[in-house]
Amino acid sequence: MFLEMLKNVREKTPLIHNITNYVTVNDCANILLACGASPIMSDDIGEVEEITSICNGLNINIGTLNKNTIASMFAAGKKANELGHPVLLDPVGVGASKLRTETAFQLLEEVQFFVIRGNSSEIKTLALGTGTTKGVDADVADQVTDETLDRTISAAKLLSAKTGAVIAITGAIDIVADEKRAFCIRNGHPMMSRITGTGCQLSAMTAAYVAANQGWMLEAVAAAVCAMGLCGEKAFARMTEQDGNASYRTYIIDAIYRLTPEDLESGAKYEVR
Amino acid sequence: MFLEMLKNVREKTPLIHNITNYVTVNDCANILLACGASPIMSDDIGEVEEITSICNGLNINIGTLNKNTIASMFAAGKKANELGHPVLLDPVGVGASKLRTETAFQLLEEVQFFVIRGNSSEIKTLALGTGTTKGVDADVADQVTDETLDRTISAAKLLSAKTGAVIAITGAIDIVADEKRAFCIRNGHPMMSRITGTGCQLSAMTAAYVAANQGWMLEAVAAAVCAMGLCGEKAFARMTEQDGNASYRTYIIDAIYRLTPEDLESGAKYEVR
Amino acid sequence: MFLEMLKNVREKTPLIHNITNYVTVNDCANILLACGASPIMSDDIGEVEEITSICNGLNINIGTLNKNTIASMFAAGKKANELGHPVLLDPVGVGASKLRTETAFQLLEEVQFFVIRGNSSEIKTLALGTGTTKGVDADVADQVTDETLDRTISAAKLLSAKTGAVIAITGAIDIVADEKRAFCIRNGHPMMSRITGTGCQLSAMTAAYVAANQGWMLEAVAAAVCAMGLCGEKAFARMTEQDGNASYRTYIIDAIYRLTPEDLESGAKYEVR
Repeated sequence: MFLEMLKNVREKTPLIHNITNYVTVNDCANILLACGASPIMSDDIGEVEEITSICNGLNINIGTLNKNTIASMFAAGKKANELGHPVLLDPVGVGASKLRTETAFQLLEEVQFFVIRGNSSEIKTLALGTGTTKGVDADVADQVTDETLDRTISAAKLLSAKTGAVIAITGAIDIVADEKRAFCIRNGHPMMSRITGTGCQLSAMTAAYVAANQGWMLEAVAAAVCAMGLCGEKAFARMTEQDGNASYRTYIIDAIYRLTPEDLESGAKYEVR
Repeated sequence: MFLEMLKNVREKTPLIHNITNYVTVNDCANILLACGASPIMSDDIGEVEEITSICNGLNINIGTLNKNTIASMFAAGKKANELGHPVLLDPVGVGASKLRTETAFQLLEEVQFFVIRGNSSEIKTLALGTGTTKGVDADVADQVTDETLDRTISAAKLLSAKTGAVIAITGAIDIVADEKRAFCIRNGHPMMSRITGTGCQLSAMTAAYVAANQGWMLEAVAAAVCAMGLCGEKAFARMTEQDGNASYRTYIIDAIYRLTPEDLESGAKYEVR
Repeated sequence: MFLEMLKNVREKTPLIHNITNYVTVNDCANILLACGASPIMSDDIGEVEEITSICNGLNINIGTLNKNTIASMFAAGKKANELGHPVLLDPVGVGASKLRTETAFQLLEEVQFFVIRGNSSEIKTLALGTGTTKGVDADVADQVTDETLDRTISAAKLLSAKTGAVIAITGAIDIVADEKRAFCIRNGHPMMSRITGTGCQLSAMTAAYVAANQGWMLEAVAAAVCAMGLCGEKAFARMTEQDGNASYRTYIIDAIYRLTPEDLESGAKYEVR
């Protein structure tokens, strides 16, 4: 099934509008190109509605939000909703400041998201209204383990029911859930957290998978999450003794570029609950 | 002839002021250093005139324009004109939004550009006043082929006559034209379009070539375009089976760093019409 | 001694708040992760005080300052001072525009910096009130050589006495001084100046070393400077004939990732004056 998902990205080359942070923006553009999609970055209120109109999907990432780009997130999000384009929210660092928390909740109120992707602390903050987010990384206490898996799946399904969005929680174990079903994904490598922006990159790529596979929202998100994790494994296998996180960053995007639909199908490690 | 052009960049180490997008800005800085020039990025209205005054050329790229940086583009452009510094326009995504189109046309009216570099859709938009730009990549229908070559050369010469700028249209075949002559350049590799920002990088580097070779505007632009294409070929030759677009990005800048004037002279593939 | 410094970074994983330029921000984030720290980038006045409160140190870099981010630098700097968090200033391009010069001097007046790191032209501008800064690179006339070493050390000690900050001047010879003692460091490689942002990266990493080694401010800065230089050497040793500045950039961050406390201890080349 995931095989078709990637094929569709490659065939339809969806154009993804990104309102995203300036830290990882280049990697987001390159991973979109790597997976077969096309990126455009634009965040001025004077053009975001028009830009999103010519695109096939919208990725909103609040990583370095500011008063100008926040307004653009709302305008673009609403326009994309009007047009029925899939919209993804990456609530980077939500819980770390009132500005982030309030922006994220306001966005959830005014924009219908198709997908919300974050780490466990970020999603917990969205689910509970408060959180323990420290910076942009998940708090150790929040990490999904085999012990907390059932509980986290239930919470993800609930949040999905509440928001109408597919929820993707990424970490050592990834969970991708709608209100009824959850994929538990065990691809990936711990070193992925030693690169800035693997989460941002996954969000951008997920928007492309979703845009190219409408009607299969949950599966498309799961396929993107598996693809990222699998490429994290492939990239790690390629590391030499002198390579560190900078080479690893390059290798992951390379692996996404080289990933075949068959690789994805056979390499994906998941169960559905 | 191109041999001297690159030698001059290396000897004069021109300092290039860039008002550019935040997606590819790091690559623009590194390619300027790679070719022998020096970058400075600055886009606040409070300093752009001063900054451009200490530089040898100005590169204006509208890739992620916003209301603040647009004002800076005008201020810096006019100042550079006053000082006789070469100014280059990269009209990223012109035609994709009114803001981009209006900004580009207003810039053409108020600033004298020495060079305009874009893909075929972007240049078509500038030439015709309307376009079919979809995002930041050239529309397939607009791509320069052997069939459309004559026509495109004529259009480029006309646009050059109208704007007083050397026009560079980059794609499978590159055209670099003033009102009388055109270089048709056949360096490059299709994979270059699978990296974000090869166009932005070329614009930054072109500003350096032009700044170091005044009086040879057309040839300097052609040399920069050949250098980029040639390094796209060299970088591709270096790819392994595991490498993808992220490694390719690194290899292209590496190749620019290693490019000798002799390499450029012998590797350039062009005809003049 | 440097051995403990790096161990402390790895053990304490300090979270560093960066208000920095958009040119080199991705490299700053990745080098922080490489050395064992954690980055967060945030520059909106609506959240910087809160963000810096959850961090262990603050890195202020004026490389692409603008009217919005300048206000955030003051707000975050004062908040960090209130909390006793170490604050570092990287006065990129100070002297190149009134905006940069006035902002830097105003920051020095209103914020207590623990460390100021810049190239010789930037630090000279801070010391003398005027400078010969051309762009973001040190002017050749300002470079620290064996001939000018004594004089530069004295100037650094004076500036330290005046500002209360440890002064780090980086270049062919690096000087790290408080008002009484100076480390002269001879690690590094000339090619480091052919990559954009090695200075920015060092500033980010220095903030992490200082945050993890409070009470050993001077030594912590010196350790970070040695680490960067040593990794510049290691990365250069790894270069192949086809590699250029883009690969070198990757290799330096890789080397920081792989650097062991023992490597740093044995590879550091310095004398104390």
